[in-house]
Order: sequence, then C-alpha cells, then structure tokens
Amino acid sequence: VSLIWHNGALHDEHQPIFTVHDRLNRGDGVFDTLLAILEPQHAPRLVRAEAHFTRLLGGAGLLQIGPLPSAVELHAAALELLAASDVAPGRSAVNTVISRGPGVRGLSPPPEQHPHVVIYFSSVPAAFPPLTAIVSRSVRRNEGSPLSRIKSINYGDNILATIEARTAGADEAILLNNRGTVACGTVGNLFIAAAGDLLTPPLSDGTMAGTLRQLLLEEYGAREATLTVDDLHTADGVFITNSIRGVVPVVRLDGSPLNRCSLTLPPDLHER
Amino acid sequence: VSLIWHNGALHDEHQPIFTVHDRLNRGDGVFDTLLAILEPQHAPRLVRAEAHFTRLLGGAGLLQIGPLPSAVELHAAALELLAASDVAPGRSAVNTVISRGPGVRGLSPPPEQHPHVVIYFSSVPAAFPPLTAIVSRSVRRNEGSPLSRIKSINYGDNILATIEARTAGADEAILLNNRGTVACGTVGNLFIAAAGDLLTPPLSDGTMAGTLRQLLLEEYGAREATLTVDDLHTADGVFITNSIRGVVPVVRLDGSPLNRCSLTLPPDLHER
Repeated sequence: VSLIWHNGALHDEHQPIFTVHDRLNRGDGVFDTLLAILEPQHAPRLVRAEAHFTRLLGGAGLLQIGPLPSAVELHAAALELLAASDVAPGRSAVNTVISRGPGVRGLSPPPEQHPHVVIYFSSVPAAFPPLTAIVSRSVRRNEGSPLSRIKSINYGDNILATIEARTAGADEAILLNNRGTVACGTVGNLFIAAAGDLLTPPLSDGTMAGTLRQLLLEEYGAREATLTVDDLHTADGVFITNSIRGVVPVVRLDGSPLNRCSLTLPPDLHER
Repeated sequence: VSLIWHNGALHDEHQPIFTVHDRLNRGDGVFDTLLAILEPQHAPRLVRAEAHFTRLLGGAGLLQIGPLPSAVELHAAALELLAASDVAPGRSAVNTVISRGPGVRGLSPPPEQHPHVVIYFSSVPAAFPPLTAIVSRSVRRNEGSPLSRIKSINYGDNILATIEARTAGADEAILLNNRGTVACGTVGNLFIAAAGDLLTPPLSDGTMAGTLRQLLLEEYGAREATLTVDDLHTADGVFITNSIRGVVPVVRLDGSPLNRCSLTLPPDLHER
C-alpha cells in the first residue's frame, strides 16, 4: 500500500481526507509536481525542490492560504515520506496538493484556516515519446487571471482541452489566450526554436511560471516572445516542457508535421 | 449532526469522502446551489429544482463526467436527505457537488469513472442586504472558456476577486472579461436597469447561465446586452442575482453611489 504525507502524519493513500465542505469543492488550492530520481546506492534527489516548493508557497500566498509549512519543511516532509515508502528505483513524481481546508458558505476564506497539505509519490516513465497536438478550438487560456501563472488546482480548462485533443486523436492541446496568441500546452509550457532562438510566451500571455521554463530562460538563452499559431507551423521545432517530462518535441500540429530540425538541448535537462 | 447524501448513502457531513487522488484536486467537477423553502405544514419546496439539476447535469456532460443520476433522481435524493435531516424551517440552500471521482496521473479522464455525487443542506438568511462592490482590478473572467458559462468548481478566479473586494472593504467584486466589458459578480449574474430596460451580459461575455437570469430573460422582459463599467455608473440600478439571494441591489461601486431609482421587480422573484 502506498503512503501519503498529510499535515505531518502518514496515511494509506486510499484513506479519504477531504470532507464535502473542503474548499477543494471550489478550486481553492494549489499543487505542484516535481521529479524525484531514485537510484540504488545514491541519496534520493528531488530535482529543483527548493524552486518548486517556493513557487508552490507563492501560489498559496496569492490565494492567501495559510498557515503553511516552509519550503524547507515541505522538502523534509517529502524525504520523510520517501523514507517510509517503498518507492521503486527510477523516476517518480512528487505530488503536493494544498487546499485551504474546510470552508463555510460563500467564497470568502473562513476567518480561521486549517489548510490540508498532502504529498504523495507516483511512478513515471524514464522517457516520454514525442507528442502530437491540436490547437484547442473550444477553450482559451485566461491571460487576465493571476491563476494562469501559478499551479492552482483550477485545471478545468486544461481538462476540457485534453478531452478535445484525445477526441481528435492527438496527445496534447495547445491553448491560445483570449487575444488569440499562444499560451501553453495543457501539461506544460511551450517553446519554439526559430532562427537560432529559443522562444516562449511571456507570463502575461497566460502561461504558467514553470520551473523548467525558468531554467531555460536563465541558463539556456531562451527568451520571451508572443507567439502565433503561424509561428508554430514555421518554427524549426515546437516543444512542451515540464518538470517530469523534460523538453518533449511536438511532431504534428493539427495534422501537419512539425520539428523538421532537432533541438540540441541536453535530453536530461529537466533532471539537472 | 447534519447529514449529507453521497452516492445513495447518508453520512455525517464531517466524514471525509474524497481521497487525495480524487479529481477535485484538479478542479474536475461541477456544483449547484438551489433554494429550499421549508414551512411548517407545507411540503418542502425546492425552487426550480428541475432547471437546476438539468443545468448541473449539462455542465457535467460538458466535462464528460458520468455515469450520473438523472435530474429526477437528484431531486428525489435531495428530498430523501431532507426527510432524514433535521433542517430548520425557513430558507436553506441545497448544495450539490459532483466530482469525476478518483483519477490517475495526467489530465485525461480515467477509462472507467466513478463520480462522487454529494448533496447537503445549509441554512441561509431569509433576506440579503444591498451590496457594496468594486470592479476587480486583479482578475478577468475567461470569456473564452465554456466553463465560464457553467457552474464548474473552478472558482479560483472568483475567490481571488472576493478577497480583493473584502480587502477593499466591499462585499462583492464585479468581474470584467478580457475584452474589458462586464461579465458578472463573483456570486451571481449582473443586471442593470437603464431607460426602462433590464439588461444582462450575453453568455459569450463570460457569464454563467444562471437559472434566475434565465427566468428574468424569459418571463420579465430582460434582454442581453454587452455592458461597460460606464453603463453601471450611469444605470438606474445595478443588481446581482442568484438563486439563493434573489435580485440584490448594488448600492455603491468603487465608492460611488448607484441605484438612484429602485427596481420594481417582485422581491420574492427568486422563490417562484
């Protein structure tokens, strides 16, 4: 049986922990997913854990959810859970979910908050195949909401777009914002390689402040630029990035082949 | 102790029912709130219950959540819960929450879904005072998402706007869409009275298909029109509507007085 870490205690993952009054019932929470690398005879490595937990707490702060453990305490909690669990060697996702906790009627946060902080592991493949994608026609990304830039649990738009992609026989949907320019994929940020540049939409175009995105901007020469659907079709390469999959090429978009050139980024970039 | 109806069984409301793997952790659900009028020696009345449950199931259908009970079965479940509960006479809210149920990693719905359907009552005041409001400066409504037109549990934007309003000392926030025109309040639809007309933004402006909104459109001569913030300030009246509160006037907007005239709609309109 797999364990979860829940507000300092370890439980069976299948034990219900949220009542119907929990503010999860209104999207009132944040989450994070980071990569754990577990190799025999090596200490477990939680990749960019400090950046992940710090960002998570920033998102919770935007929603004024608290009190919460510090980033250091969350990191320690994940390691505690790992030590108590029988996680298989290889790659795992460290999933953290924070909800504001029990609420009363109405949308205002309750006067006294008792947040839930839950951490659990799930195994993930060591490598992810290239993606086929569509541009979503049914959903736009809300560039006018600060939640488009954090990992809030309000992923309904992404779920709708995912259903649309799967119905169309594709793996992934690219989301445009309400201005009609490119925001991101449903599971990660979007980058294009074009004329030697590595470009990704600015946060103000409605995209999430991904930690791998940040790494590419700070250490691999990527820069921000507003992108159109045409830019995707004419690019040398189109990529979806997240902390679990790394940099994954999109090989078809709305049925047309993409990525005629191949990007030279290190395949283990997201594990650094 | 209050009871909830959960997939056909009655539980204590404080019993946890959702595991951390429930898709509530990604906003994957819908909800509804309708008015129950309980008077001694009268059969309980669930106001416009069929319209509410039908709309709720329509929202679940948009997200392809199922299998679910029918609207008639949901109505019967609410009455069953009521009969088993000790609900005080007066006005109550009948709250229904539907989640897709347990999920696996990723955003795709699991191949086999086991949704949670939960119904619970909460008492509400018989009347609601007029509101003071601000126009949200921090959040826009996503007119490009079908979720803006249903009651999905992705209420994070509304929560942010509510926090903004309370911080500014106001009761309610009016949300604009990304085009900058008026969408709705955080807790209901918005109407203005102007030059003898009763106007509300069309659904395509990013507003929810409220049942009271529908009633006002179909039976009280209201009509749809795109509205600007200026329209609110120059209107004879501005109102927030929902099924629990009815038609509630907004008396101040960003500090300026509104509603110099009074609307002649029946005060018990939402109870019909």
